[in-house]
Amino acid sequence: MPSEFDLIRRHFTRPTRHTDLAGGDDAALLSPTAGQQLVVSTDMLVEGTHFFPGTDATDLGWKTLAVNVSDLAAMGAQPRWAVLALALPAADDTWLGAFADGFFACADAHGVDLAGGDTTRGPLTLTVTVFGEVPNGRAVTRAGARPGDDIWISGMPGRAALGLAHVRGDLTLPDTQRPACLAALHRPIPRVAAGLALRDIASAMLDVSDGLLGDLSHILAQSRVAAVIDEAALPLAALDYPGANADTLRRALLSGGDDYELLFCAPAAARPRIAALAPSLALPFTRIGRVVAPAEGLRLRDAAGQLNPPGTLGYDHFL
Amino acid sequence: MPSEFDLIRRHFTRPTRHTDLAGGDDAALLSPTAGQQLVVSTDMLVEGTHFFPGTDATDLGWKTLAVNVSDLAAMGAQPRWAVLALALPAADDTWLGAFADGFFACADAHGVDLAGGDTTRGPLTLTVTVFGEVPNGRAVTRAGARPGDDIWISGMPGRAALGLAHVRGDLTLPDTQRPACLAALHRPIPRVAAGLALRDIASAMLDVSDGLLGDLSHILAQSRVAAVIDEAALPLAALDYPGANADTLRRALLSGGDDYELLFCAPAAARPRIAALAPSLALPFTRIGRVVAPAEGLRLRDAAGQLNPPGTLGYDHFL
Repeated sequence: MPSEFDLIRRHFTRPTRHTDLAGGDDAALLSPTAGQQLVVSTDMLVEGTHFFPGTDATDLGWKTLAVNVSDLAAMGAQPRWAVLALALPAADDTWLGAFADGFFACADAHGVDLAGGDTTRGPLTLTVTVFGEVPNGRAVTRAGARPGDDIWISGMPGRAALGLAHVRGDLTLPDTQRPACLAALHRPIPRVAAGLALRDIASAMLDVSDGLLGDLSHILAQSRVAAVIDEAALPLAALDYPGANADTLRRALLSGGDDYELLFCAPAAARPRIAALAPSLALPFTRIGRVVAPAEGLRLRDAAGQLNPPGTLGYDHFL
Repeated sequence: MPSEFDLIRRHFTRPTRHTDLAGGDDAALLSPTAGQQLVVSTDMLVEGTHFFPGTDATDLGWKTLAVNVSDLAAMGAQPRWAVLALALPAADDTWLGAFADGFFACADAHGVDLAGGDTTRGPLTLTVTVFGEVPNGRAVTRAGARPGDDIWISGMPGRAALGLAHVRGDLTLPDTQRPACLAALHRPIPRVAAGLALRDIASAMLDVSDGLLGDLSHILAQSRVAAVIDEAALPLAALDYPGANADTLRRALLSGGDDYELLFCAPAAARPRIAALAPSLALPFTRIGRVVAPAEGLRLRDAAGQLNPPGTLGYDHFL
């Protein structure tokens, strides 16, 4: 019988590409690149809070790293390393192997070395800390949006929320939507290439994890600006299906989290450059609104041209 | 009523000294020092596994960071930054304030900036990732011990184990021992200055978290050597008290963890330099044995000069 320690070592020891000393000592050793800032983010996922008990272990391994890498993407950083702290109720060989498969699939897809970790007994909890690099002074923060900037969103936000509603049984997605929505929920793709491409274009950027409007409010607060979102511009068509409830789709897009799409601001002069990026990245960008002066608050412009605060539309919880 | 988010922000936002962007964005930004390697360690503490429910929050805040900083000390690194991921069953203002007090007391004592973090709902779980720096190629690993090296331990190992036994009611410490043993258990002092001073002296080093013999076995395995520990040399006198059970003291010293003392190897020629360090660091170093050729295994030399494998003495569990 292999010990718990052997199991962990077997599943989590993989070749590293750019780590001086990974695992097996008191600490890992890395050599940061000269002229770059280190970009660091940590996220903890708890069973029952962030994922359902019984979630597929490979999906969970992927997502655990993906949500962290997404934070680096949102800064315009190149992901480089990760460390993983795991609390496990039991050492289950099959589960650990499947989790590691998903974790390393995401790591390999984004050039991330697992540099170290910790394993302990406890309620299933996963903490990843990721390290990326960005040339000095070129990280994209949340604080740079200026009145007049466009507001953009990548991809098809709302799919993960529809996927979650399907898993919960709150609605039934048709075959045309189900695979994409479940993939968005279980295997979110961190927008690393997009983040790098937008590094010198975006004035402010973040990844949408808690809902588009709620996360936009963080940009507005830190940039001390306001915004008008144009409802007619929202990429709702991609979510639509026969029998869909229009309000459900709208809420999934504006308030659903977990898609990890990039929400960013950019000057109007950058429109051609952003349009040119989409084909090479195979990722659509949709211009959904405009940054305005701070006195005006965040408002949604409806089809009739009427400006409404999100609170009057039931979006208070997310702001 | 402040929100949970406000509570976290209030207690964990402190001035930073060497962090470019701390908290409030997708990721933190740091500028690693040119010519240094980054030294990274992560540790997860789970209520019920690593600490008792109801543990004093200030002590817990201190220890959560201290055990991580200790890993950096054991590499000979200068601690610089930390990120903290917290799962909390509830947002308790008093508890968070006390925890933050302990955490930042340890951070301030060791020059650590809290660069970022994450908070979520869940069973009480604390994950810290720490970052230190060491000049290129000068980190002390576990792999450098050579036959003929001395084996040294800092401080008074065994105190934390006696403190734990006292808290559990397994024994009753007298007034002469109790404060030091409870302090060792609840407020371990990471041996940062000692680790830095030993950087160019020690051939191999680690911090004792799981027990002296068990952790020594990690050095032996990674250095492909063996060792003889001289029982007569163990610093048992510091643990002694009237009525103490001699075997309990010996087990606390050899198998107790949680003191976070430095266990290291060094050539015999370094004895005068090590002796000279002790007064300036106000920390004793005790030479407890010798590294030998790998064929011989780890053995304890008793008062009669007899060599015994630790397994025959009941230390198997820790090896």
